[in-house]
Amino acid sequence: MSSSLDVVTIGNAIVDVLSRAEEDFLLAQGMAKGSMALIDEARAEALYGAMGPGVEISGGSAANTAAGLASLGGHAAFIGLVRDDTLGTVFAHDIRAAGVAYHTPAASDGPSTARCLILVTADGERTMNTFLGAAQNLTPSHIDAQVIVKAAITYLEGYLWDPPAAKAAFLTAADIAHGAGRQVALTLSDAFCVDRYRAEFLDLIRRGVVDLVFANEAEVKALYETADFDAALIRLRAEAKQAVVTRSEKGALFCANGAVVSVPAIPVSEVVDTTGAGDLFAAGFLFGHARGLDPASALRLGALAAAEVISHVGARPQKNLADMARESGLLR
Amino acid sequence: MSSSLDVVTIGNAIVDVLSRAEEDFLLAQGMAKGSMALIDEARAEALYGAMGPGVEISGGSAANTAAGLASLGGHAAFIGLVRDDTLGTVFAHDIRAAGVAYHTPAASDGPSTARCLILVTADGERTMNTFLGAAQNLTPSHIDAQVIVKAAITYLEGYLWDPPAAKAAFLTAADIAHGAGRQVALTLSDAFCVDRYRAEFLDLIRRGVVDLVFANEAEVKALYETADFDAALIRLRAEAKQAVVTRSEKGALFCANGAVVSVPAIPVSEVVDTTGAGDLFAAGFLFGHARGLDPASALRLGALAAAEVISHVGARPQKNLADMARESGLLR
Repeated sequence: MSSSLDVVTIGNAIVDVLSRAEEDFLLAQGMAKGSMALIDEARAEALYGAMGPGVEISGGSAANTAAGLASLGGHAAFIGLVRDDTLGTVFAHDIRAAGVAYHTPAASDGPSTARCLILVTADGERTMNTFLGAAQNLTPSHIDAQVIVKAAITYLEGYLWDPPAAKAAFLTAADIAHGAGRQVALTLSDAFCVDRYRAEFLDLIRRGVVDLVFANEAEVKALYETADFDAALIRLRAEAKQAVVTRSEKGALFCANGAVVSVPAIPVSEVVDTTGAGDLFAAGFLFGHARGLDPASALRLGALAAAEVISHVGARPQKNLADMARESGLLR
Repeated sequence: MSSSLDVVTIGNAIVDVLSRAEEDFLLAQGMAKGSMALIDEARAEALYGAMGPGVEISGGSAANTAAGLASLGGHAAFIGLVRDDTLGTVFAHDIRAAGVAYHTPAASDGPSTARCLILVTADGERTMNTFLGAAQNLTPSHIDAQVIVKAAITYLEGYLWDPPAAKAAFLTAADIAHGAGRQVALTLSDAFCVDRYRAEFLDLIRRGVVDLVFANEAEVKALYETADFDAALIRLRAEAKQAVVTRSEKGALFCANGAVVSVPAIPVSEVVDTTGAGDLFAAGFLFGHARGLDPASALRLGALAAAEVISHVGARPQKNLADMARESGLLR
């Protein structure tokens, strides 16, 4: 059966609150720069009170990827849970306005819509503090089988392993996708996330629950508990059916069946905010992969989308990525 | 008595929702490009549904001016009304985090916090649609006399003339300020606003309720119902005790007692979003004026603050304006 959707992404539905911060502020607040930490509502309120003026922009890793896919002209859907509150309304508006199919009903009770307090330092690096809120109540009942079956690829974020109920939703989606002959992709999301769930992530890869793994250098090293990237990559190549590894300014590579294809990064005049870099790289690669492009072309689309998103504040594209890809000769 | 506050600004407490839009969208929605239109909640919801993905950033003309004053190192306070809802919390957090004293208690019932749907076209021009919400319920009871008495200048936005109850608050504040020997400033806000309230604004100027008027070219022409800027300026010079007129890339001028001082605009490499340009010009000038700088120096601070805010999305400064002013030799 042909797929009428390129990709459905499943993840935490989050509104980001971005604020400029000094390195000293991160230190004083005990944050590991560049990481994602889970926080409860009380901590979220205390931190919000201490941080500077903010900008609210819809985020969420897999949701950003879906928005990127739509900007490239792809057919994308997103599954994730918000509350029926103001931020939930904002999240739903923004992802639909981006051209993504989004039909998960908002929760009418329970915790409020998830938010991620993001401190952006002068070097453009982001440090994230996530209050999962309603997103943590995603369950198998929210997985719309009709959407999964229609999508060439079901893409899951590693962060979904944090909310216990969402793990079951994750596995339900993977089962449905494989039952329909589709591919399942997983991003490892964050090195600290890998530290929390290393054994489970390795199990998902080894058992073939995941056909395509996305990771950055730090996550691959965390997965195999080594500081030696090359050693970690050898193990990933041996264990994963297919993998995409992003290396920031060193470019990115794709490996499958022992072969490796790599492409350089696209230079950016000023890195303003790295929030969403990995999410948008995944969007570009997934679009190319779902449309049957060769791996190098798919990687180049990933590099293009990542370069756009790090050149401004916020984790979703502000320019039309399809136009940019056509101007660069990557799409016709 | 010496003033422990440089400026208190009074205006509509608003959260902006900024979105990129094509010129065709403005036409289809019947909007006058560059203007501010008042809309009701139903229209706000319909327009929000039709517009693209948004970014939520605290705004409000006089509130932006207060944030700019604080960024310059000034002592600023703001008076304006929000509801005790999510956007109200965002507004209060952002203005306090910017260093502005803000103590107007949030309304516990009535309409929700004001929001302004802002469409930004490719040329950086903004077209605004404001749902006044809670802001329209500002009354004289919200005017904290102790704050007004402490401030060298009380600054009012012309938009305050839209909510009927706020007019009385405006006049109460002006009376208190003059009773304490302070100055009262008014921005005309918007040419369409001037069209609505021309006779009343002229009356405020002629009766001396206002000591210092801020206007842009379009507003001065609207005030005197002429397309001839020079003719309009002659009349403003004759009627206003003091006036600041901003002319976008043509610079700005200050007139008092028949004399005129003008300064050029500061060139900007790319005009990204003009939202807040007038508000930040006012911040720079007011800071200089309150600190006793000569008019040309105060105008230059205005030009500097305006140049910063039009170079990025959002109506409040993202860089420290005091640092920028020191680097430019405008402050020590």
